[in-house]
Amino acid sequence: MSKPYVLGIDIGGTNTVFGIVDARGVVLASASIKTRKHSDITAYIDELYTEATKLMEANDAIDKVHGIGIGAPNANYFTGTIEGGVNLPWPTPLPLAQLVSDKFGIPVAITNDANAAAIGEMTYGAARGLKDFIMITLGTGVGSGIVINGQMVYGHDGFAGELGHLIMKRNNGRLCGCGRTGCLETYCSATGVARTAREFLEIRTEPSLLRNMDIAAITSKDVYDAAIAGDKLAKDVFEFTGNILGEALADFTVFSSPEAFILFGGLAKSGDLLMKPLKNSMEKNMMPIFKGKVKVLLSELKEADAAVLGASALGWEAKPTPAPAPVPATVPVTPQA
Amino acid sequence: MSKPYVLGIDIGGTNTVFGIVDARGVVLASASIKTRKHSDITAYIDELYTEATKLMEANDAIDKVHGIGIGAPNANYFTGTIEGGVNLPWPTPLPLAQLVSDKFGIPVAITNDANAAAIGEMTYGAARGLKDFIMITLGTGVGSGIVINGQMVYGHDGFAGELGHLIMKRNNGRLCGCGRTGCLETYCSATGVARTAREFLEIRTEPSLLRNMDIAAITSKDVYDAAIAGDKLAKDVFEFTGNILGEALADFTVFSSPEAFILFGGLAKSGDLLMKPLKNSMEKNMMPIFKGKVKVLLSELKEADAAVLGASALGWEAKPTPAPAPVPATVPVTPQA
Repeated sequence: MSKPYVLGIDIGGTNTVFGIVDARGVVLASASIKTRKHSDITAYIDELYTEATKLMEANDAIDKVHGIGIGAPNANYFTGTIEGGVNLPWPTPLPLAQLVSDKFGIPVAITNDANAAAIGEMTYGAARGLKDFIMITLGTGVGSGIVINGQMVYGHDGFAGELGHLIMKRNNGRLCGCGRTGCLETYCSATGVARTAREFLEIRTEPSLLRNMDIAAITSKDVYDAAIAGDKLAKDVFEFTGNILGEALADFTVFSSPEAFILFGGLAKSGDLLMKPLKNSMEKNMMPIFKGKVKVLLSELKEADAAVLGASALGWEAKPTPAPAPVPATVPVTPQA
Repeated sequence: MSKPYVLGIDIGGTNTVFGIVDARGVVLASASIKTRKHSDITAYIDELYTEATKLMEANDAIDKVHGIGIGAPNANYFTGTIEGGVNLPWPTPLPLAQLVSDKFGIPVAITNDANAAAIGEMTYGAARGLKDFIMITLGTGVGSGIVINGQMVYGHDGFAGELGHLIMKRNNGRLCGCGRTGCLETYCSATGVARTAREFLEIRTEPSLLRNMDIAAITSKDVYDAAIAGDKLAKDVFEFTGNILGEALADFTVFSSPEAFILFGGLAKSGDLLMKPLKNSMEKNMMPIFKGKVKVLLSELKEADAAVLGASALGWEAKPTPAPAPVPATVPVTPQA
């Protein structure tokens, strides 16, 4: 490979972080712009280009970038577009890969953020050497990236791996952003943890450190801090969360029989508070032929670098996207015989 | 390919059916032996060899068989063994591929029955041309074979695709043969349908044709016949079954986003009785981004030929299994530097 670098871009709801990465997964330099500053996508890409070019110039990387990898919510690997239903300021479907590739003159590959994390982990992190694993991202929502036989699973339409939306409670389940009820992510995301805490505070009567706070504003971090301080109710919230996540991992196992699950995101750093009930519940709920076989690992990517690294790993496989064939304006379209 | 045939062997709990199949999926001839006649595996394989050889001789197929494919419960593609927990008369783990290959002098590949059905459907049936689909076999249990990106999913240990054991009822679910409760197959298999009928007959009071029968002996066929005769309770059993199966297919979709589900087995032939509630429930429970995208198809393989055809398709990819390296008896094993 003649060009030694890739550019990784992680488009989040607030910030767009980008970095220059080498083949060993070292982030040479990174920077960011505000995702929502431009409601016009052209202006956004212009700023991204300007700032990324500065970064490449400062690091002697101009003309040395093999490809650009982008991780973004609802990004479709097959079509190169960002699809609807997502918290970004531009109209969808948005042909992001084409637009960025046209501007930079560099091949671009895109995928959703959880898939990017899985690719990053497989290339540089805890999943090195694993051919069958499932990445679970525990953030505002629950995302997933499934790798089978060394290949990312995209599915028929590019949207495979929405494991945060497996139904865990068929009766009286919580309303999910997807419009249904009972999805895993309504329980086991950071927002799910806060939701559980609010629910427990309402239906239980015991004292809790969390009762001193504005209940509507409680975050998963508040629940974590209270649990660490010994608060029983807060610890029960993690027990409840770990139980459901364990049930879910046991369910996922009957599908693809992975060697490991890799957990990523703030919640994954809750230590034994989450991991103990999670592992107990996973083994208890596991189909017998899979018991004791499946590891639960934590991401090995540094949080600050992870999103950019994951996206960048995709840059190595980016191929030039041919522009759509122009439709001749003056020649009438005749059906072929 | 110089040898024009494969031998397909389907090992069921009662019968072992085998047939000679050509590259277009025509079953030239088939025969069967009783699976349980020999509790000694060597005697069983001897009889299988004798009978299969007769069949090959009668059809001018001696020395023209490229490979042998075997479908059997709990058969592991990676190890070539049949693992424990299965209703067959021989001790497990059983190195079936090696034993059959040694006896016949022909390469052997084995996999579980549902995977064999998926491979058969992909090679000769409703899944021709599909790269992402999930085969669901509705028999005594519920089996599944998952194909992603044109490849059979075996998972880390060879046991992927146990979708009959996704938990559909987390509270008060039915006891499953796997030891857990609430598995899909306790509701949506042929035995699950009979179980639902018995449950409905006990907890409901309305008249039903099924009340004229020995309730303990009711089969899914009895329920089907009663439903076709207009019996309300029997029709409700299919409605209940279709609803749960639809919920399950919607759940499976968030995993691998398949282009189609292919249903196989006796229950799959229940027509609108099952398919109508199933499709309604699947769409109703589908995550919005997948709504209206996923087909539900019926197997296109003839029931009589299907098991043999499915197994035989695996015969084309069978590779000679090297015998395990012999351990020299007289030379002491010295650790290498």
